[in-house]
Amino acid sequence: MSKVNIKQLAKELNLSISTVSRALRDSYEISADTKKKVFALAKQLNYQPNPNASGLRGQKTKTIAVVIPEMVNDFFSLVIGGIEKVAQEQGYYLLFYFTHGDYDLEVSFINTLANGRVDGVLLSMSRENHDNSHLLELNKNGIPLVLFDRVSENLDNVKVTSDNYDSAITATRHLIDAGCKKIAYLQVHKNISIGKIRMNGYLEALRPKGQTPLMVECSNENEETFEIIEKMLLNEKPDGIFASVEKLAVICYRVCEKINLRIPRDIKIISFSNLQTASLLNPSLTTITQPAFDIGETAAKELLDIIHKKSKSASRDKHVILKSLFIKRKSTSALY
Amino acid sequence: MSKVNIKQLAKELNLSISTVSRALRDSYEISADTKKKVFALAKQLNYQPNPNASGLRGQKTKTIAVVIPEMVNDFFSLVIGGIEKVAQEQGYYLLFYFTHGDYDLEVSFINTLANGRVDGVLLSMSRENHDNSHLLELNKNGIPLVLFDRVSENLDNVKVTSDNYDSAITATRHLIDAGCKKIAYLQVHKNISIGKIRMNGYLEALRPKGQTPLMVECSNENEETFEIIEKMLLNEKPDGIFASVEKLAVICYRVCEKINLRIPRDIKIISFSNLQTASLLNPSLTTITQPAFDIGETAAKELLDIIHKKSKSASRDKHVILKSLFIKRKSTSALY
Repeated sequence: MSKVNIKQLAKELNLSISTVSRALRDSYEISADTKKKVFALAKQLNYQPNPNASGLRGQKTKTIAVVIPEMVNDFFSLVIGGIEKVAQEQGYYLLFYFTHGDYDLEVSFINTLANGRVDGVLLSMSRENHDNSHLLELNKNGIPLVLFDRVSENLDNVKVTSDNYDSAITATRHLIDAGCKKIAYLQVHKNISIGKIRMNGYLEALRPKGQTPLMVECSNENEETFEIIEKMLLNEKPDGIFASVEKLAVICYRVCEKINLRIPRDIKIISFSNLQTASLLNPSLTTITQPAFDIGETAAKELLDIIHKKSKSASRDKHVILKSLFIKRKSTSALY
Repeated sequence: MSKVNIKQLAKELNLSISTVSRALRDSYEISADTKKKVFALAKQLNYQPNPNASGLRGQKTKTIAVVIPEMVNDFFSLVIGGIEKVAQEQGYYLLFYFTHGDYDLEVSFINTLANGRVDGVLLSMSRENHDNSHLLELNKNGIPLVLFDRVSENLDNVKVTSDNYDSAITATRHLIDAGCKKIAYLQVHKNISIGKIRMNGYLEALRPKGQTPLMVECSNENEETFEIIEKMLLNEKPDGIFASVEKLAVICYRVCEKINLRIPRDIKIISFSNLQTASLLNPSLTTITQPAFDIGETAAKELLDIIHKKSKSASRDKHVILKSLFIKRKSTSALY
């Protein structure tokens, strides 16, 4: 491994050690020209910072923590793809943590980050509008935090989401236009603000039509959710389903197969989904497809801008809303 | 944040600082009883180690690097789930790196790990049987390395894979038994040993039947692969396809839709796949399903055993082979 250190880089370039150090941290205090020279020589000589020593001297760890509820999910896989693209371009490491939607795990992990293990945190919350003191503590410690997808309006940090409210209205109106008279709305965590926002879109679209809402609270466990949906379909007999989360749509397909409900003849289904096989399902699934990769990319860029002080603290209370796609397929077809 | 340090823990427990320190590192030199007491008090007082200081003193970073080719893939998502379970149980952080199958990126990332940023590395190789000096260097630096899924027999490290050869034989024989006379084998990287092993299984199963092999080399780019498969189906007219990688099966479905080939009537398809929607596709996809979660869990446990010195260096040249499942569905049905 290389033994080149900052001192040697500084000598070679005829610059002060502090200038080289700040250039390597991509500080705004150093000119683009100087940074270019420093980066070029560092690369040429295969300079490797000592991450531990750097941390102690209050320098950067070049590491970002990514805290998400789950990973076995096409939405978060794509989000990570976007985050990773930016991280790789800018030479950052990614430390991952999966909360499984467990608030206590989130708090405990965030607390371990407060001692400077990372330069910043990207978080999709396990539970919003709850006690946010662990996040306020992070802010107080000067560790930049950007929220994405599952965010809280109560926090004064940059937020990146998709247009959940508008998309939910589009989805519900589409079912109404396809002839549905009784539309069930399936959700997992009604306490999560993203769930509430989508539900409000659903309610808003139903109101002028005088349709009675049918809200179904599912579980974190797939088998339990299967039973909840089966019972609901048999008892309530809706003719439309709006699944607010991808995995609920997949479970609906399995239930319909079991109880011989034909999609879209007997029941139409639309879902928020980034499922890569949506078009190959039997029948193909109509989706609201979030710009998952862009959400990850945008959140990572916002975070790195704050870390590199390109972003002023005044611009921190900023909510970037990206547009989702509505993709009509056979599961909501009026003709069959 | 807590201000408790090792000194206070030692005083409270009436133990030496070095004993507490080693207990916290889960050293084999300390009895299970003592460790239990130390962990209990550390938890009670919310003790947080300073990761940077620890690193400098040659202690553990409690971080594992996970280096994989890609992530937008149901196989690696499940593997990560298994790794994460073990990491969370044992209090380890996960640093992720995605190589996109690019050998140079792998080398460059592994080189940055040699300076002690992590306690160990889990790697699914971007290219095997190539120059492995970056991995030998890691071994020389005493940083434990465990290989999984895409491994190299030339390296003297613990390896965890599934039974690729046997599964490929099973898959090919199944197509033969379903009546296929001309079976195409689709692969992405013929230079990757896992690809070769699967191909050898395919060839071995064909041999006694006197069928001529039809090996098709696809691309890393989905659009290019679509064209390669389309041209192959139109020119070669196989009646069976064995996709060695999940994404190739999905592309096959799209091509068949475009050129009006009916699955399984005109062509039967089987694939190595952990696709969660395999049973919901039109038609449902017959798969060889790898124990992806178990592969991740086993690899992580093997690595932590080496880190914690529970595993002797003599047992390092060990290859754990886990069994895949063969799941018959409609895409290879002889009756339609």
